[in-house]
Amino acid sequence: MALPRHAIIREVGLRDGLQSIARVMPTAQKLEWIQDAYDAGQREIEVGSFVPARLLPQLADTAELLAFARTLPGLTASVLVPNLKGAERAMECQADLMLLPLSASHAHSLANLRKTPDDVVAEIGHIVAARDAAGSRTLIEVGMSTAFGCTLEGRVAPAEVLRLLQAVLDAGVDRVGLADTVGYADPAMVRELFGQALPIAGDKLNCGHFHDTRGMGMANVFAALQMGVTRFDACLAGIGGCPHAPGASGNVATEDLAYMLASMGIATGQDIDRLLALRKKVAHWLDGETLHGTLWQAGLPKTMLPAGMTPAQVCG
Amino acid sequence: MALPRHAIIREVGLRDGLQSIARVMPTAQKLEWIQDAYDAGQREIEVGSFVPARLLPQLADTAELLAFARTLPGLTASVLVPNLKGAERAMECQADLMLLPLSASHAHSLANLRKTPDDVVAEIGHIVAARDAAGSRTLIEVGMSTAFGCTLEGRVAPAEVLRLLQAVLDAGVDRVGLADTVGYADPAMVRELFGQALPIAGDKLNCGHFHDTRGMGMANVFAALQMGVTRFDACLAGIGGCPHAPGASGNVATEDLAYMLASMGIATGQDIDRLLALRKKVAHWLDGETLHGTLWQAGLPKTMLPAGMTPAQVCG
Repeated sequence: MALPRHAIIREVGLRDGLQSIARVMPTAQKLEWIQDAYDAGQREIEVGSFVPARLLPQLADTAELLAFARTLPGLTASVLVPNLKGAERAMECQADLMLLPLSASHAHSLANLRKTPDDVVAEIGHIVAARDAAGSRTLIEVGMSTAFGCTLEGRVAPAEVLRLLQAVLDAGVDRVGLADTVGYADPAMVRELFGQALPIAGDKLNCGHFHDTRGMGMANVFAALQMGVTRFDACLAGIGGCPHAPGASGNVATEDLAYMLASMGIATGQDIDRLLALRKKVAHWLDGETLHGTLWQAGLPKTMLPAGMTPAQVCG
Repeated sequence: MALPRHAIIREVGLRDGLQSIARVMPTAQKLEWIQDAYDAGQREIEVGSFVPARLLPQLADTAELLAFARTLPGLTASVLVPNLKGAERAMECQADLMLLPLSASHAHSLANLRKTPDDVVAEIGHIVAARDAAGSRTLIEVGMSTAFGCTLEGRVAPAEVLRLLQAVLDAGVDRVGLADTVGYADPAMVRELFGQALPIAGDKLNCGHFHDTRGMGMANVFAALQMGVTRFDACLAGIGGCPHAPGASGNVATEDLAYMLASMGIATGQDIDRLLALRKKVAHWLDGETLHGTLWQAGLPKTMLPAGMTPAQVCG
């Protein structure tokens, strides 16, 4: 179980994070966030979602953010799209990648998209066809939500996850990822499910999306890394919690994940000090919201500070 | 890397946790904590430390707690002892186990015990001799502090950890554990160091003591589990932080660890609902202190609730 030497952290705070916070962050702040994240070395950012603004007013400025993100050299700008209509907008706006959610849980799929998982698979087929017909270069990634369990259904059968995975691969998507949408995964499950999915999807399966709802986020990332997964979603300050569980942790925190990977010698290109500075800004912008993450309080260990610099914390 | 089927969580909140909190918890509350933890299935509890009360007034009632803990059938009651004098008290009070800290970091050892690591090894030899001469049945465990790094020295050479480990094993101790006292470990380090230490110590090395200072606590536990480690220290509500870094996370939280192990099918005998109820009590007793842990906010997943019970949280 050798660990990979490189990994990618996709910042999804602007989408998965902000959509779960009622207030609307002004576009100017989002643009600054994207610029600062880019300056901190982040090269994949999910800037928003093409859903109707009446459903998610927090993400109504997605087209503007995407236009800005496309000006930053080497940045992969992705957007979430729930259906063909959203996909058409993503292609018009020349997103580098569009993320299509597909719930492995029947009940969650109905609640979230008002479609059965198989209807969503069919829609994904239409989106691939539309993309190919248009000659668009927008990559298509399917994020398999509730792959490790569902608040509505409870257990989600791995066989169903694998069946849907095969179906979207057959439909011609470019990438797939497994998402622990509600924080039910543990590292043994991660090892097991990725172990079953990788032989089916191969290199196309390269994203782990973990929530830290029950404290397992980083352990789940580590388990996935051991399986060879090298791309992870994360939210700065660990936002992205569930609106029905106020205070509960959200996505794994970008800065904690960047630290863990750096500590293990896995290159991500991220500058942790800059991430922590950006976190401070975001915390100010989101003053009053519950934030998460751990590193920001303790700071980097002495072993990772520049020579001669004294750690803030001397204890033991 | 098969996971073990059973694991032990030793509650160290009454020692490592409370010693880092300025206020003194009344003995009656500590006794209730021990009883409730026992009722929740905990069978190893570190009740305190035999250090001079002027140094740690929070732990001055250790003898009384130990006397009570010894009345609970099947409970292994341990105490921390810093030297021969403390060890003599532990034996007088018939502790089941005494934990002797040994810092792998020279600077930390001097700061914490005013002795070099080798002087501590010599003292440990005297303690083993005294125990054997007295015919005492108190087990001797060495907790290797700062095994993964030190806030004073920075990097701690694994070779030094292994040398000291061999030295205390030669001195005749019954058990050894590796402690990430200051939260510098990452799961790759854990895999590496336990991988090097296990061939030296074998079954005598069976404890991992991880702090969540930088969010790696659970990932480190998972890495150690994969190496075959089956005994972990933890503090209810994740107390045990560093007094010099207010707010920073402490030890891994007992309730989160119990949940992770249960979710992975690793038996610990712990009743998580009772642990969460006890956490609530402790949070009330420690009102105003910064607590940690994650599960308490989100609650158990639907997959782990009794049939027919609705989870508090329905989202995604």
